Amino acid sequence: MADKVAQVAIIMGSQSDLVVMQEAALILEELQLMSDVTIVSAHRTPVRMVEFAQSAREKGYKVIIAGAGGAAHLPGMVASLTSLPVIGVPVKSSNSIDGWDSLLSIVQMPGGVPVATVAVNGAKNAGILAAQIIGATDLEVAKRLDEYKEKLRLSVMEQAQSFEMHGWKKKSIGF
Amino acid sequence: MADKVAQVAIIMGSQSDLVVMQEAALILEELQLMSDVTIVSAHRTPVRMVEFAQSAREKGYKVIIAGAGGAAHLPGMVASLTSLPVIGVPVKSSNSIDGWDSLLSIVQMPGGVPVATVAVNGAKNAGILAAQIIGATDLEVAKRLDEYKEKLRLSVMEQAQSFEMHGWKKKSIGF
Amino acid sequence: MADKVAQVAIIMGSQSDLVVMQEAALILEELQLMSDVTIVSAHRTPVRMVEFAQSAREKGYKVIIAGAGGAAHLPGMVASLTSLPVIGVPVKSSNSIDGWDSLLSIVQMPGGVPVATVAVNGAKNAGILAAQIIGATDLEVAKRLDEYKEKLRLSVMEQAQSFEMHGWKKKSIGF
Amino acid sequence: MADKVAQVAIIMGSQSDLVVMQEAALILEELQLMSDVTIVSAHRTPVRMVEFAQSAREKGYKVIIAGAGGAAHLPGMVASLTSLPVIGVPVKSSNSIDGWDSLLSIVQMPGGVPVATVAVNGAKNAGILAAQIIGATDLEVAKRLDEYKEKLRLSVMEQAQSFEMHGWKKKSIGF
Amino acid sequence: MADKVAQVAIIMGSQSDLVVMQEAALILEELQLMSDVTIVSAHRTPVRMVEFAQSAREKGYKVIIAGAGGAAHLPGMVASLTSLPVIGVPVKSSNSIDGWDSLLSIVQMPGGVPVATVAVNGAKNAGILAAQIIGATDLEVAKRLDEYKEKLRLSVMEQAQSFEMHGWKKKSIGF
Amino acid sequence: MADKVAQVAIIMGSQSDLVVMQEAALILEELQLMSDVTIVSAHRTPVRMVEFAQSAREKGYKVIIAGAGGAAHLPGMVASLTSLPVIGVPVKSSNSIDGWDSLLSIVQMPGGVPVATVAVNGAKNAGILAAQIIGATDLEVAKRLDEYKEKLRLSVMEQAQSFEMHGWKKKSIGF
Amino acid sequence: MADKVAQVAIIMGSQSDLVVMQEAALILEELQLMSDVTIVSAHRTPVRMVEFAQSAREKGYKVIIAGAGGAAHLPGMVASLTSLPVIGVPVKSSNSIDGWDSLLSIVQMPGGVPVATVAVNGAKNAGILAAQIIGATDLEVAKRLDEYKEKLRLSVMEQAQSFEMHGWKKKSIGF
Amino acid sequence: MADKVAQVAIIMGSQSDLVVMQEAALILEELQLMSDVTIVSAHRTPVRMVEFAQSAREKGYKVIIAGAGGAAHLPGMVASLTSLPVIGVPVKSSNSIDGWDSLLSIVQMPGGVPVATVAVNGAKNAGILAAQIIGATDLEVAKRLDEYKEKLRLSVMEQAQSFEMHGWKKKSIGF
Repeated sequence: MADKVAQVAIIMGSQSDLVVMQEAALILEELQLMSDVTIVSAHRTPVRMVEFAQSAREKGYKVIIAGAGGAAHLPGMVASLTSLPVIGVPVKSSNSIDGWDSLLSIVQMPGGVPVATVAVNGAKNAGILAAQIIGATDLEVAKRLDEYKEKLRLSVMEQAQSFEMHGWKKKSIGF
Repeated sequence: MADKVAQVAIIMGSQSDLVVMQEAALILEELQLMSDVTIVSAHRTPVRMVEFAQSAREKGYKVIIAGAGGAAHLPGMVASLTSLPVIGVPVKSSNSIDGWDSLLSIVQMPGGVPVATVAVNGAKNAGILAAQIIGATDLEVAKRLDEYKEKLRLSVMEQAQSFEMHGWKKKSIGF
Repeated sequence: MADKVAQVAIIMGSQSDLVVMQEAALILEELQLMSDVTIVSAHRTPVRMVEFAQSAREKGYKVIIAGAGGAAHLPGMVASLTSLPVIGVPVKSSNSIDGWDSLLSIVQMPGGVPVATVAVNGAKNAGILAAQIIGATDLEVAKRLDEYKEKLRLSVMEQAQSFEMHGWKKKSIGF
Repeated sequence: MADKVAQVAIIMGSQSDLVVMQEAALILEELQLMSDVTIVSAHRTPVRMVEFAQSAREKGYKVIIAGAGGAAHLPGMVASLTSLPVIGVPVKSSNSIDGWDSLLSIVQMPGGVPVATVAVNGAKNAGILAAQIIGATDLEVAKRLDEYKEKLRLSVMEQAQSFEMHGWKKKSIGF
Repeated sequence: MADKVAQVAIIMGSQSDLVVMQEAALILEELQLMSDVTIVSAHRTPVRMVEFAQSAREKGYKVIIAGAGGAAHLPGMVASLTSLPVIGVPVKSSNSIDGWDSLLSIVQMPGGVPVATVAVNGAKNAGILAAQIIGATDLEVAKRLDEYKEKLRLSVMEQAQSFEMHGWKKKSIGF
Repeated sequence: MADKVAQVAIIMGSQSDLVVMQEAALILEELQLMSDVTIVSAHRTPVRMVEFAQSAREKGYKVIIAGAGGAAHLPGMVASLTSLPVIGVPVKSSNSIDGWDSLLSIVQMPGGVPVATVAVNGAKNAGILAAQIIGATDLEVAKRLDEYKEKLRLSVMEQAQSFEMHGWKKKSIGF
Repeated sequence: MADKVAQVAIIMGSQSDLVVMQEAALILEELQLMSDVTIVSAHRTPVRMVEFAQSAREKGYKVIIAGAGGAAHLPGMVASLTSLPVIGVPVKSSNSIDGWDSLLSIVQMPGGVPVATVAVNGAKNAGILAAQIIGATDLEVAKRLDEYKEKLRLSVMEQAQSFEMHGWKKKSIGF
Repeated sequence: MADKVAQVAIIMGSQSDLVVMQEAALILEELQLMSDVTIVSAHRTPVRMVEFAQSAREKGYKVIIAGAGGAAHLPGMVASLTSLPVIGVPVKSSNSIDGWDSLLSIVQMPGGVPVATVAVNGAKNAGILAAQIIGATDLEVAKRLDEYKEKLRLSVMEQAQSFEMHGWKKKSIGF
């Protein structure tokens, strides 16, 4: 890990969100960035949430990733309490209407308090976006992101070449 | 006003919500219940919101009505900070997607922290619901609610009788 | 059970709704409040519904919880027939379009007749809201609700401490 | 008017629905069928609604047209109280979310109690459908419906011929 | 079977719709009304559809039930070709977006050509509605419908009595 | 006009659709392709629609553009009656639910009968797509399309240069 | 295979889309038209996408079929880079909100750059539409499309005749 | 202006988006951050878009704000071509279905290529988020953001005090 202290905090409302949210931690690890992961619930621990958000900058975090489902208030409330950028991950939990409630509760923030929203269950992209925010000024991280982009490109190229060599029927299901 | 102190607090995120939210105060006035009306913003005054919610019961309120639009976190966050019943009014503000975001952000609360949600822009019904909550034990208020229900019934009966006497064409637009 | 008579009536349109609606009864039990549970169908027993609603207050109920799915008319119709507060639970039944129809049929009540709507399948929250309505004036119940809130907080704190001690990877699925 | 007594009852929850619902009465008039028009509110006059629905068949009605907006319970509740066919008109009233709530509250009825739903604000089609129901056995009415269909066809043919003769540019807006 | 010839035609776009649409035939059978069931596809057999619809009245049908999924054109196109009442059943087929496309394609007919739409997958209600249309003038059928309504009522009453006798916990899942 | 006979037929259900649909004819004119424009209604002139569609190829058309609103059956029904490519334009007419019904009724065609759907009110794009279909083999038309693309590019470049020269504030509203 | 070189290119963003997209290739094969199938990702190989689109016409393609899910940019971006007709297939992938995002990202293209959109997961129809585009001028292909339409018709007729001979109960599930 | 060179690029697909997008530039100005504003269209100038995105980092930008409506591909495509953080603003343009298409086309990006999405028409929040990203490491900017947050808080406090002093009726519309 090139990183010595965690620049990214990953928080979620409940342990059940971890199956989605761990992807953020894993991709950050792959990009050699440390993250702290914990549980902060807007509705069950509102005071802890206030304390977490108000002290986040002095703890050294540069970005906060917050995931929540249903009436998802965690990302927006944290954003109201810090001037750090907050990335919101709408979680399609069991009590969500197909993710619509999570998405709208996070993205439709009023003027003055933005949340950087990614796709429903898009925790991986939240991790990459956190790295991009750090990489806006940290050129070492930017270089790792460029390498990651190149890796994505190569994996598509390999699939394409395999198609062209062996034909698509070899790949398809049901043949 | 039969009521001496306000049993209902009506809060909203911004003065621009007043055009919708005043209907709650007006119907409570009609039902002879006092209410306090003020501005508390989840996103612009989060600390004030915490203080308001935590002290609401000791201030003598029995019910809180909270209105908000877009990613509407005020009702749910207040509900997380008090054991008083909280009524949420989804406001169809200019930055709302036809009210869908406001509605889902308020009604889809996770297990443990309910918000009693009324219709989009349904502040009048929020006022009546507050009165019904008080009237669950206060029989004087219950009586006023029964009288209000009777008034609603009579206004429909009048319309119906007018139709039957004069025919509907007298009432319609474009004749 | 601290409670001697049922202050809460829980009704639903069909026995098949019980798997969702029983959560209301169970949380009320946990909060030491008695409830009566029965079947009342707006569409199959409309006359029974009228009689139930009109006599609910004199039977001693303080709140009614009504659950229904699809074109869910039970909560709103009961609310039209009593001045007691009515809590509506939109049930995502097999004949529902992902819960949208149940939700809109319950929450979008016209001016004059509110239904206190909770989340889709949110019967547990309906039970808590019923207790909050009783607890608006009954300080013993309010105390139990505060204890319940504290229990919620502690369960999150435990999860968070376990994360911090053992790391989140111990908790995640797929490791 | 070929018809001596009203075979169709047109009811609506409020006088404000008349601007939409009058189209049902007008097309029935054009098809020489009498209709009675009145106000019956599911939520403000539930007992009147029960009485209306239970006596509808003996009053000689063959079809009931019911229009309502928002959480629109009138058509479904009337259908639960009579074995006459009930046609529901979802009204896009000011308190409706673009008509979605009205539509879903009317069409998504549970097994056993159908409502014959037409388009949002489709009162004219409700009138025609009522005539078709009568015309299923009354061949005189069926003949008038066939003539109406022919009139619709001719009005399109005229438009088409005018296009072909004079070109479409003559008809378009902005030339 | 009290009925000698089929007064109801039940058509569907494909054999795969039968699992939904057979409920219409079964409830009609229960109500002692004969129905003819066949396949007519708007998109794969458009000419057959025209012929079917144009000859439906002279074949003795009084009502047509048409079920279709996705871009569901069958009910509306049949309605454009006959003055008989047409009942549309939106089928939630595998190629449908949760039934929304089927529902909107059937219910939102333009002025002049109504389709009596029932709930998504509501074939049983389509059958009952067909019987109600026949029962508008046939008092024997009306009597059977009243008996059916009474049966629905009794089945709810039985469930309710069992709840009251044995308590709801005996019925619930997970105990 | 380089074109001697119309290779494109533009049809719509009603004269009121012309304000939207004329854009298809105008862009085809700009691309020097003739089109015939007329009224064909699926629901009011179903037989004319069958005849139009079945004879379209022998009349020399290579593409059909069909616009309709609400339960929009015209494009799909025409597609079921010809093997020519049919382009569907969902029209957001007054009886449409924000265009959702028009869009879904046109795009969600079952397997075997495609409609090439463009955006809601996207008649201009329908015209361009028709030209692209002709230009798939007609290189003269392809060249005109490339020139049109270049014109689009240049209009953006001009706006961009004006921004860079004079600053964006000159262009904005409210300054 | 009557066709000697591929006139149709089928591209998709990822190998995981093949299970949907192969239906396009298979129906084209059935219609004796060759297609090339490969992977081109708008987001992971944007430069490859530009090169593919810009050289598509000179490679001899007449139509491009592009499938993508979620925020599906591939069809629209390819359409911006070529004057060939582009058919878009909205894929309901695991990261899609029930296909709504895929559908809207593809169909709602701005004026000037159309995408011929088919149903969600409608790859088979994309293949048929590609053949129809080629068949607009190639009468041999048109003939094969007419034969395919006839085959569709016959398969419905067979089902219908089987129903009429053996009754529908033989076919239904659950008997 | 404390800032000497622009760290933020604001791009949009068309000059008509400026009425929305200028709010991003104005709030950045208020926060003393320079921005460059220009037109880049994904669909009308795809090559310019590629060049813009690929050279953005070396031009000194730290964040890109991209606004687009309908099938909004600009933010996602730019994100695919740079490792800088990209903020997407869904514009509710005239050709948009109430903003749903713009929102879903921007937020639902596939794994690997995030776009930091803000509310529909939320250009002001895009500007603030850009400042927060710069302020993650630039403490001078962070301080200005904290002051901005304080200003928001004070404006709410003023409204609240005015309510408490003069009563809410002075503020409401219609008194």
